[in-house]
Amino acid sequence: MSTADETLASLTRQIREFSRERDWEQFHDPKSLILALVGEVGELAELFQWVPADEAVSQFEDVARRRRAGEEISDVLIYLLRLADVLGIDVAAAAAAKLEGSRARFDVANVRGVAPRKD
Amino acid sequence: MSTADETLASLTRQIREFSRERDWEQFHDPKSLILALVGEVGELAELFQWVPADEAVSQFEDVARRRRAGEEISDVLIYLLRLADVLGIDVAAAAAAKLEGSRARFDVANVRGVAPRKD
Amino acid sequence: MSTADETLASLTRQIREFSRERDWEQFHDPKSLILALVGEVGELAELFQWVPADEAVSQFEDVARRRRAGEEISDVLIYLLRLADVLGIDVAAAAAAKLEGSRARFDVANVRGVAPRKD
Amino acid sequence: MSTADETLASLTRQIREFSRERDWEQFHDPKSLILALVGEVGELAELFQWVPADEAVSQFEDVARRRRAGEEISDVLIYLLRLADVLGIDVAAAAAAKLEGSRARFDVANVRGVAPRKD
Repeated sequence: MSTADETLASLTRQIREFSRERDWEQFHDPKSLILALVGEVGELAELFQWVPADEAVSQFEDVARRRRAGEEISDVLIYLLRLADVLGIDVAAAAAAKLEGSRARFDVANVRGVAPRKD
Repeated sequence: MSTADETLASLTRQIREFSRERDWEQFHDPKSLILALVGEVGELAELFQWVPADEAVSQFEDVARRRRAGEEISDVLIYLLRLADVLGIDVAAAAAAKLEGSRARFDVANVRGVAPRKD
Repeated sequence: MSTADETLASLTRQIREFSRERDWEQFHDPKSLILALVGEVGELAELFQWVPADEAVSQFEDVARRRRAGEEISDVLIYLLRLADVLGIDVAAAAAAKLEGSRARFDVANVRGVAPRKD
Repeated sequence: MSTADETLASLTRQIREFSRERDWEQFHDPKSLILALVGEVGELAELFQWVPADEAVSQFEDVARRRRAGEEISDVLIYLLRLADVLGIDVAAAAAAKLEGSRARFDVANVRGVAPRKD
């Protein structure tokens, strides 16, 4: 299976089809989908919570742990694409626009090596 | 701009490039990225929190609100792909495997029209 | 057991003691605690994700489900108080100040019956 | 103001009263409250996301930053207590029971100095 060229649009369609076949579209209102996404983000967070920050990458080079992380990341992605689909959002276009805006907003000359503060 | 064929791999590369140009890779350890992702999930949740569940789709047909939702979904997606990249995870392959597993686990004949309970 | 008069300060002390006895204070840096809290918020979200919004209260009148919800709410509370403790924050004073500020910010005459919008 | 003896029950009552005065109880179904809580958890996460893990405590000794953290922790606490109230859960009793269970489950002799793994 070659997945390097998997598109967001194709993955979105597969998830829609998966939901439709199970008659689960009735449960997929936006608020419910966000709660489901939060559930998966929670599982992702749990994998890393007690791992020392500077060992997180190396500890997850272990095959089994990397696969677990990949599963949780996928679960988040699946609910995120399902949410965009339900809202009629073209997530590829939205992400491209967001990146374009961020390139302008965070000018390399000004922010190089500096993490933006949120407070 | 045609984005319908945007791939996960290409978007991942753009985000990596964006981070590299700003010398922000030093901040992108997995735990920090998950916290950043949680921040964006929070902004997404706030958009919908007080909207009646059965009006969420229709209220977000408004152009400005749909764009806002698209921005927050994109922010979550960007941190999620960045996290996968930092961990060396092929997210397209992981998502394909996850969907394949879910198709087997949730057999249509057994789960049709029934939302799985988590308790 | 009478808990109606359980104070935030007393609960915070019990959690600190629990952590100390297990020599777990070493893991309780703020970022790790927030990730642990996110994990518990995720479990809380999962309990409600597919429940129709207008049935959530009634479905959780069931003794077993209410107990499950109480456990997840408690887990979130425990990590939240632990985080405040680690940061040297008097959460009772902070919450009192926040409520006081909200009373002033959301004047009853202006906001009665209107949910604040975040976008 | 002496807050050291602020009880969970009293804080819960104040939040209920605050909601009632604004006729906001109509918005406080469990799923909406969890989304609001997620929004506040997101703001809490953003404060810490790019702070080096081993500097988080010291950087937040700064008065202004500690106050910001206290505000976000309070926001999470307020929505959490409101959720418990709406569900008819005595959060003080639930937290006491949870701690009691954890004391038994994580026997000091077995877990001393070892962070439980979730994978």
